[in-house]
Amino acid sequence: MAPALIDFEYRPRASERAIERVYDALAPALGEGQVSRDPDVLLAYATDESGAGSYPGQILVRPDGTEDVVRVLEVCAWENVPVVPRGGGTGRAGGALAVEGGVVLALERMDRILEVRPESLTATAQPGVVTRDLMEAVEEQGLFYPPDPNSLESCHLGGNVATNAAGPRAVKYGVTGDYVRSLEVVLAGGRRIRTGAGRTLKHAAGYDLGRLLVGSEGTLGVITEITVRLRPRPRRVETALLFFPSLSAASRAVVEILRAGHQPRTLEMLDPAAIEAVRGKAPFRFPPGEQTALILELDGFGEEVFEAMTEIADLASGRLGASEVLVAQSEAEREDLWASRRILSPALRELRGKKYAEDVAVPLDAVPRMVERTHEIAAAEGLEAALYGHAGDGNLHVNLLFDSDDAWPAVMRAAEAIYREAVALGGTITGEHGVGLLKRGFLSIEQPPEVIEVQRRLKACLDPGHILNPGKILPP
Amino acid sequence: MAPALIDFEYRPRASERAIERVYDALAPALGEGQVSRDPDVLLAYATDESGAGSYPGQILVRPDGTEDVVRVLEVCAWENVPVVPRGGGTGRAGGALAVEGGVVLALERMDRILEVRPESLTATAQPGVVTRDLMEAVEEQGLFYPPDPNSLESCHLGGNVATNAAGPRAVKYGVTGDYVRSLEVVLAGGRRIRTGAGRTLKHAAGYDLGRLLVGSEGTLGVITEITVRLRPRPRRVETALLFFPSLSAASRAVVEILRAGHQPRTLEMLDPAAIEAVRGKAPFRFPPGEQTALILELDGFGEEVFEAMTEIADLASGRLGASEVLVAQSEAEREDLWASRRILSPALRELRGKKYAEDVAVPLDAVPRMVERTHEIAAAEGLEAALYGHAGDGNLHVNLLFDSDDAWPAVMRAAEAIYREAVALGGTITGEHGVGLLKRGFLSIEQPPEVIEVQRRLKACLDPGHILNPGKILPP
Repeated sequence: MAPALIDFEYRPRASERAIERVYDALAPALGEGQVSRDPDVLLAYATDESGAGSYPGQILVRPDGTEDVVRVLEVCAWENVPVVPRGGGTGRAGGALAVEGGVVLALERMDRILEVRPESLTATAQPGVVTRDLMEAVEEQGLFYPPDPNSLESCHLGGNVATNAAGPRAVKYGVTGDYVRSLEVVLAGGRRIRTGAGRTLKHAAGYDLGRLLVGSEGTLGVITEITVRLRPRPRRVETALLFFPSLSAASRAVVEILRAGHQPRTLEMLDPAAIEAVRGKAPFRFPPGEQTALILELDGFGEEVFEAMTEIADLASGRLGASEVLVAQSEAEREDLWASRRILSPALRELRGKKYAEDVAVPLDAVPRMVERTHEIAAAEGLEAALYGHAGDGNLHVNLLFDSDDAWPAVMRAAEAIYREAVALGGTITGEHGVGLLKRGFLSIEQPPEVIEVQRRLKACLDPGHILNPGKILPP
Repeated sequence: MAPALIDFEYRPRASERAIERVYDALAPALGEGQVSRDPDVLLAYATDESGAGSYPGQILVRPDGTEDVVRVLEVCAWENVPVVPRGGGTGRAGGALAVEGGVVLALERMDRILEVRPESLTATAQPGVVTRDLMEAVEEQGLFYPPDPNSLESCHLGGNVATNAAGPRAVKYGVTGDYVRSLEVVLAGGRRIRTGAGRTLKHAAGYDLGRLLVGSEGTLGVITEITVRLRPRPRRVETALLFFPSLSAASRAVVEILRAGHQPRTLEMLDPAAIEAVRGKAPFRFPPGEQTALILELDGFGEEVFEAMTEIADLASGRLGASEVLVAQSEAEREDLWASRRILSPALRELRGKKYAEDVAVPLDAVPRMVERTHEIAAAEGLEAALYGHAGDGNLHVNLLFDSDDAWPAVMRAAEAIYREAVALGGTITGEHGVGLLKRGFLSIEQPPEVIEVQRRLKACLDPGHILNPGKILPP
């Protein structure tokens, strides 16, 4: 376990007596197997993919439906016991860690796709549905659910909504919140509400409570049912790998391709350091010299996809000065092109043994400067950096590479300098991972006290007892 | 002036002394001409396009910048004087009416487009910019701002954000809120915050305050600066008018065209009653017999737009059973096709002399049922109905036609029955106009007390003195 970027004090808030009363109230009602105080069980739910440490809850509860969630929130409000909702445990910001103990509310048993409705282009699912499962279920009916977080094989739809998750396809299709049409939510205290208007695509009645819940990381309510809108399933996909002799040429290409009216469904960038990490490991030969790569994928319904790819390839090779353009001619070649992205994360780790990954986002035109400054900042701390990410929306995954835990203080300093740089460039400390536990101490780099104060007020208004996922998002 | 659907009591809240103090504090600071108590001036700002009556403020203030707005909100918080932000005055729900008197804050002088940035596909503008002006300014630079509320010649961007306005293009491009990336907002009491992260396209840090402000109709804050994302400007447009022999055939066509993967930028429906109203007035001959029409427009960047239109025309004439398909062959023909939509509103008014317009939205598959039930409800009250609207997103403009003010009680009963039907079909009482003053009494048809209560809490949390646009959205 990598030491945390900051030491988060694990301090269970509830007394042993309160925990016992919560257990006694819930276990008979939900069934013994669904409510556990077994330390081994609690440990199994104590971590996520942030590497921010192990924070076991004091009770694990696995509700079977909304009624169970209501009961948990009623009892925990009464006893002042924290409730930490948990999806697939794939979060990168520590949003699901029980830093103040209490109930870990694992929603994995609420995993049913309730309805897919081709006739209204919507689907309704429980929060514990694995994102990939929803994608496949709607694709079987000729439909398409675009948000594709990297962890889609194991992350849950509820977690996607709670963090407003996104993936490579966001450049064309937007983020999870853009698909949410209605939510069933249980508020602190056990009140159950619905946001939006069911399957309706448009809604202008009252405040947009759904959008307030999206991305609130379990701090304002527990999401128990999700209705999303769908799109028709694209029938054609074209993929290309474009190499450019400089970072600035590649960044210019991103903007020029978008401004020409093309709508790539992915527009991923690998900086020269990232390219070096996978050079020789990819199933084809990279051009020599320093290179920045773009993985560009188009989708659609007919020949226009092929035609657009031809145009882009011509534009890239011509005016945009690409050193090489590889367009996949078969599904196997397509897989090969994506391999360079897929092997990147392990390859970067291999390079030095350890890595720390960030997800700043900056305006499109600030991408080259952000990449350049990141390398400078890393070098000043004796670290290496490699960047890749969603260049089409300015969301960069910054990787700091190092070989010893002794480097953590330097990594921390570099990370903070990178956040400051992103904000100075008009960007944000997190484009898609969220703040969670890991970045709560850095939120004030981006947001002045009055913006944080407004969020504190909203939190206090919806969760006056600070029961829901305490310690997340807002600085302590 | 049509009598209001409900009688809204005009009850200025602030004492004459308080108003005098506010005037004395603001007039010297903002310049005499920008702060007025002249009754004629106040009357000129007392109405909007809702027809809900005349509600003059007690002071008109026309701020020149954010600093002025801060000053107004500071003074009014201190004196407990309501502040009613006002854009182009084109609202259909009475959101800009000063039902409790106070300061009418007309943002018309804050009308500068501050920056258009092709390199990051964003633009920043003040709230008083006319929507059409923003559209044209970005189009000059090869960019595109898609939201197209019907009143775009005179409505303001600030009002668009405050109501989350939308127009025909929402079916492809989404609503105003989908374009907002960052807002500068002055909160009750004068605190100034920024939401989002500037020009950054993606943002996951903290609660989505921007989306809470979008559609909040001036009740949570005054929007003083808006950064929107842009798209590249489409270079090709194809327009068609499709006639179907039945409403259900047209509705099925909407879903089938979308499911085939086509992305019309508009997909407007005119029901048989609407068609009858414009038959003979349109610049071309309609097919005989009962007809439902769809106005379908495609846009894009190349030949694929033409090809898609050919496919849609074939699909419509073939499997979807259209009685006639007219594809515009020139810009003049395109204008002609749109004429049938443009002349509709006056033509409907001519039909019986008076009309009452609504904007319910229902799930796509519920559109035929909603149209059918609307006619039944109207007939039961001795009224006529005609429907048109954004069929591609289920947002229908219901028009109740009548010839005498004596019919108002019947219109009121029918409107309420129509709202109830929309909600019963899984829809909403308002798809794009908002709740404002006009529908606040009907919100409880759609939202149970606990959802309204949550909104009350949010309102109280951000505006404890109920200074900002009192009497709007939430039932009294």
